[in-house]
Amino acid sequence: MDQDRLAKQFAFLIEIDKLKSVLRASTLCDASRTENSGEHSWHIALYALILAEHANRPIRIDRVIKMLLIHDIVEIDAGDNPIHGDHDTSELEAIERAAADRIFGLLPTDQAEDFRNLWDEFEAAETDDAIFAKSIDRVQPVIHNLETDGGTWPDFNVTRAQLEDRVGVKVRRGAPAVWTWLQSRIAAHFGG
Amino acid sequence: MDQDRLAKQFAFLIEIDKLKSVLRASTLCDASRTENSGEHSWHIALYALILAEHANRPIRIDRVIKMLLIHDIVEIDAGDNPIHGDHDTSELEAIERAAADRIFGLLPTDQAEDFRNLWDEFEAAETDDAIFAKSIDRVQPVIHNLETDGGTWPDFNVTRAQLEDRVGVKVRRGAPAVWTWLQSRIAAHFGG
Repeated sequence: MDQDRLAKQFAFLIEIDKLKSVLRASTLCDASRTENSGEHSWHIALYALILAEHANRPIRIDRVIKMLLIHDIVEIDAGDNPIHGDHDTSELEAIERAAADRIFGLLPTDQAEDFRNLWDEFEAAETDDAIFAKSIDRVQPVIHNLETDGGTWPDFNVTRAQLEDRVGVKVRRGAPAVWTWLQSRIAAHFGG
Repeated sequence: MDQDRLAKQFAFLIEIDKLKSVLRASTLCDASRTENSGEHSWHIALYALILAEHANRPIRIDRVIKMLLIHDIVEIDAGDNPIHGDHDTSELEAIERAAADRIFGLLPTDQAEDFRNLWDEFEAAETDDAIFAKSIDRVQPVIHNLETDGGTWPDFNVTRAQLEDRVGVKVRRGAPAVWTWLQSRIAAHFGG
């Protein structure tokens, strides 16, 4: 029993190693290389832990951390799709759902269901935990771009208005004080 | 108040980005490159989540996850020191304590104390949570070496007896069923 569960658990743990080879749009804070989705997931779990007090609604931080640790795993099959990039949303969602079926499906059934439900909750962005997790996921790339003099924003022709529209709205939904803090730095970057 | 706390919190979150540039002894499971300590920390947080049921004592998984997310941050100043390498333990411990002072010290005082206490607890390896966290930290490199036909074991002249002695003892202390599962794979690798 234990041995069968362990075989499935390790099949999953070995498979998700591939997330370290999925590259994101933004770089590390020293601009030395592109960030991967594995190390990004570590970093934003710590973002959530440290910034939890700024959530505008009561959250269960243990659920938020768990969501953030698994939120990008579907990228092993679906790739990273930058918020400022162009892609067919419904097609991408179907690919990501199939990825979730396959990858979480490697786990023993009870854990597969638990993780899948949590990923669905994150994607739906309706519960307080998911709203806060999503807002934190949007904060870190802004920091990395600010730390690297705009970083990859020029590649995507990102404007200050677009940041308000695509990022600010989501960050404010879960952590308004964090967005207020970021706004003054964004303004300074864009020379306003 | 919020703004002062946020400045300190972001100083910490930006500083720890450097953990993604600290390289470990072992590689990714596809042997494509050396693993870094940031992505390793993400991976073992998931190891702990998935394998929590195999802990031999009751644990609080949220504390274990938090420990594992921060356990390697001192390596930003102290570097990674492989379990099979040679180094002066007391000198290394002093360097790591100084690193913990500096890096956790970037946070607001309450969070700095909280994280420092948790890191001290992990290092002391006396509580059930810390013992399980330490055991999980030892499991992942074994898997990566097995997945890559021994990986970096030959570089450190690692024998099966040495794995029992340096790794098995610690894994068994927190998660004996996991070590039993690994033992048969290790035996197969070493041809016994």
